[in-house]
Amino acid sequence: MPLSDLRIIGIPGIPEVEIGANLGKLISEYVREAGLSIHNQDVFVVAQKIVSKAEGRVVHLKDVEPSLLACRWGATHSKDPRLVEVVLRESRRLLRMERGLLIAETRHGFVCANAGVDTSNTAMGVVTLLPEDPDRSAAQIRRVLEKEFGVQLAIIVSDTFGRPWREGLVNVALGVAGMRPFADYRGQTDRFGRRLEITQMAVADELASAAELVMGKTKGLPVVLIRGFAYPEGEGHGAQIPRSPERDLFR
Amino acid sequence: MPLSDLRIIGIPGIPEVEIGANLGKLISEYVREAGLSIHNQDVFVVAQKIVSKAEGRVVHLKDVEPSLLACRWGATHSKDPRLVEVVLRESRRLLRMERGLLIAETRHGFVCANAGVDTSNTAMGVVTLLPEDPDRSAAQIRRVLEKEFGVQLAIIVSDTFGRPWREGLVNVALGVAGMRPFADYRGQTDRFGRRLEITQMAVADELASAAELVMGKTKGLPVVLIRGFAYPEGEGHGAQIPRSPERDLFR
Repeated sequence: MPLSDLRIIGIPGIPEVEIGANLGKLISEYVREAGLSIHNQDVFVVAQKIVSKAEGRVVHLKDVEPSLLACRWGATHSKDPRLVEVVLRESRRLLRMERGLLIAETRHGFVCANAGVDTSNTAMGVVTLLPEDPDRSAAQIRRVLEKEFGVQLAIIVSDTFGRPWREGLVNVALGVAGMRPFADYRGQTDRFGRRLEITQMAVADELASAAELVMGKTKGLPVVLIRGFAYPEGEGHGAQIPRSPERDLFR
Repeated sequence: MPLSDLRIIGIPGIPEVEIGANLGKLISEYVREAGLSIHNQDVFVVAQKIVSKAEGRVVHLKDVEPSLLACRWGATHSKDPRLVEVVLRESRRLLRMERGLLIAETRHGFVCANAGVDTSNTAMGVVTLLPEDPDRSAAQIRRVLEKEFGVQLAIIVSDTFGRPWREGLVNVALGVAGMRPFADYRGQTDRFGRRLEITQMAVADELASAAELVMGKTKGLPVVLIRGFAYPEGEGHGAQIPRSPERDLFR
């Protein structure tokens, strides 16, 4: 019996990404430098941080004028009011504003701490915002890489989110291109011929989590290649993953 | 530069698991049959379903006397009142009971649909409960496998959970043995010398999600080997992952 074997490979050497960088080109360059050949159905998982930097989604805090709300919240919770202001601007709704935590719904519909505004792995005084349209970001990278390597690929732009009920953070998919984000089991049956209750596995999120195991936070590996996963084919989007507020029992 | 390379391998051939089965022995047998050698720091991810079956955590619905609450809820939502009764008995608290969904806190502290009671991949009229103590289950499997192969291993017992805010399900860790469930970044600095805001990555959950990509739901691969991940060493437990209700903003 052939083994079901999935490989997760960090692309080494990718340097600090500058505004305007063509990430597809950059990735293909370092893939070649690593001597990796690229196969049909390979998945690239790309950290949000380098996508945001390439797209200029950075804010210099010195340019930010905080509102009264941001000043008050910042003062109460020992946070830079300019950072709080950026978070408020990136939010379309605040779910919780307590214990020093700002849990927000972003303009994309993602629910996460600080609306995805992040201060790590950026220069002092600079914060990154989420990409404006992570699906578009993924599609652009896909276009370049598919042309470079002449194969069909899937791309996931991933970020690190907390979640209710469980401690610790995990990586999830923000943007998706070249695959559907869910493996759909509707109508399928189990070993006993019973219809599966589980309808949709969020495989794009699972791929993002799997990639994080190789990315780490301090290893400088913002791009990871996953090989051997028969992803759900079709044109899907990361925007399909956030649950609409009406369908959500926990906001 | 050597590649950071992680492999995820499904153990083929594992048959339907019977009550009383020694899972460690069973897994080692099929590992050997597949011709796999086992290395130090390998991680085995084992599906909750076969752990529950081996431990006899199954209920025959014909033996269940539903309460009035179970009968009413079942009638309103077209659910078998005996199944509802089992869910209520496995719960220590109900978070939501609406739109036909029962979101419960289990006796272990996990928050999930139906308190982990599951009807898939079981014979008709039979449901599985979560293991009584998934950390103990993981520790037992670890003890047998470490002895069989003479190496240090980590074991994760995984299950499939939904989550708020995002559609689809992902695999998470219920039980953990031989590793800590979190990668701790406290005090570490990023490329720019800034202290990382992210403190703990839930790598046990990420390993469970990664394993699910190989397990699938219909492939009959309830045991997966993950090789190449430098997991956080120490004696950790899955019981550390559920957030305590006092620390949770979303119940």
